[in-house]
Amino acid sequence: MDLVDQMLGGNIKALTRLVTLIENQSPQIMKIMPKIYKKGGKALVIGMTGPPGAGKSTLVDQLIKLIRKEKKTVAVLAIDPSSPFSGGAVLGDRIRMQSHAQDLDVFIRSLGSRGSYGGLSRATKEIVRLFDAFGFDVILVETVGVGQSELSIMEVSDTTVVVLVPESGDTVQTLKAGLLEIANIFVVNKSDRPNASQMKHQLMEMVSLGPATLGSPTQWAIPVLQTQAVKGTGIEELWDKTLEHIKFLKKNHEAFEHKKQQERRGEFLEILTLAYQKEFLRRVQKETSLKTLLEEVEKGRKDPYTAAFQVINKT
Amino acid sequence: MDLVDQMLGGNIKALTRLVTLIENQSPQIMKIMPKIYKKGGKALVIGMTGPPGAGKSTLVDQLIKLIRKEKKTVAVLAIDPSSPFSGGAVLGDRIRMQSHAQDLDVFIRSLGSRGSYGGLSRATKEIVRLFDAFGFDVILVETVGVGQSELSIMEVSDTTVVVLVPESGDTVQTLKAGLLEIANIFVVNKSDRPNASQMKHQLMEMVSLGPATLGSPTQWAIPVLQTQAVKGTGIEELWDKTLEHIKFLKKNHEAFEHKKQQERRGEFLEILTLAYQKEFLRRVQKETSLKTLLEEVEKGRKDPYTAAFQVINKT
Repeated sequence: MDLVDQMLGGNIKALTRLVTLIENQSPQIMKIMPKIYKKGGKALVIGMTGPPGAGKSTLVDQLIKLIRKEKKTVAVLAIDPSSPFSGGAVLGDRIRMQSHAQDLDVFIRSLGSRGSYGGLSRATKEIVRLFDAFGFDVILVETVGVGQSELSIMEVSDTTVVVLVPESGDTVQTLKAGLLEIANIFVVNKSDRPNASQMKHQLMEMVSLGPATLGSPTQWAIPVLQTQAVKGTGIEELWDKTLEHIKFLKKNHEAFEHKKQQERRGEFLEILTLAYQKEFLRRVQKETSLKTLLEEVEKGRKDPYTAAFQVINKT
Repeated sequence: MDLVDQMLGGNIKALTRLVTLIENQSPQIMKIMPKIYKKGGKALVIGMTGPPGAGKSTLVDQLIKLIRKEKKTVAVLAIDPSSPFSGGAVLGDRIRMQSHAQDLDVFIRSLGSRGSYGGLSRATKEIVRLFDAFGFDVILVETVGVGQSELSIMEVSDTTVVVLVPESGDTVQTLKAGLLEIANIFVVNKSDRPNASQMKHQLMEMVSLGPATLGSPTQWAIPVLQTQAVKGTGIEELWDKTLEHIKFLKKNHEAFEHKKQQERRGEFLEILTLAYQKEFLRRVQKETSLKTLLEEVEKGRKDPYTAAFQVINKT
């Protein structure tokens, strides 16, 4: 696997090829990932989620500028679970981020949905690990926030920023519990629009009434910030609060370590489960008995429980 | 397992106890479910999803009245993934449905989130199968629509109704692709409010531009209905369209059967995966080597891939 060594040596082409391998869920991953795990652990991982049109990409763009001023390197992973496209996706807001295309210390990649949510969630975590191993100082993960994808962003990020706009009242109502579970920081972007302060107050009330962020120490008071990304307003405050949250996590070392342990356990069970599934499907191709079993289930001749029982008892 | 026989004989107490077993994910399920699978297949399963406050419970309440007029029996499963409560959950809108509490041919049960989404999704399917086996003519599954839970409602329902209100513009934007994936019928409830027709047109445009509902024959034109559930307006049309959709499915037998086969395959893999996971966790308790392995992963001393590899190679 000298591809991994090349990547660790700073080769961008090797990095890109590894991203593609992960994206395609190549069987090689099981051998590549352990090497990558050994190297990471230093990057700051920041998740940005929210409805489409909330201005996440513009915020990311502004954050990149700020981070680059501090001479730190940045990788961006933009996930769109609703898009079947990936890698070279031509999205309007991707183009804007191309303002950094000349900057070799900014690496931007987007990831669309291929197949199941489980696959996308896995690939997200793996690519973040890869960016971390490569040595980026900051990794920004941007995703259109719809249920499951938000949960996976939380699992991979140190700090999760939920970006809303003054018109998001209905979304906030809909996702209420989900939002509180994932947000470490709320941002009301496009704050020049009417109702921006109402939105801010709605969120502040939700934060004060709601339970503490799951998996996060109880003492962190989720801040509600206002930004106007196109003008660059409020970006510094957002960055400051992010760094403050990271500091908070490090200070509360025990709680942080507990969260990490839960994540690692979850990740292990996820990998194990997917590996079992793949292994099972691989065996189905070979063993006639399993193929017949799957067919019987598909045609409703055998119930899935009896069939699952049969498989488990065999192994 | 005479509990299953009692239930099949029409014993409501046995039915209730079986629901509780499923809810608690009792290990007995693996033995109970095959018997239940043998009996079902006749009920009409209708899913209702949408944001909180859209009036789903009132719609369900009105539908029950209509279905009861036709002398059909009804079971309702109300799922709230954001609630940690279950079974006897005291929800405001549950109380309204108590108007049918005297009616022995209406069975209402609610289900909150316990643990993972995966568990809730599984329990939902199992309870629906149980209601089906008991012999209810119609099963209404109501859920607060947030990402993952919507997908599971689609997997279990013949017809999925997405309920929105005139103010749901932002939600529609956020969930766009997700909504088109699951909706067989759109309902704009509270249609006396301003912007009801705009909402209707926004949905109609989305339907006309969007891809055909996944897993459903391409020729079904998703209707967009208007209702005012509190007054009972539009309920008959909703029921008619639901029956029309069921007829459509039956007419397009091959496409329907294809969808069913995919669902059965998915369900089998889901059960198999959960069973593997449980089996693994069960073995962890016993085998010191596995316990040590899990601890090493949790503490970050061993990466999850290497550990998963180790487990797979052993089995």
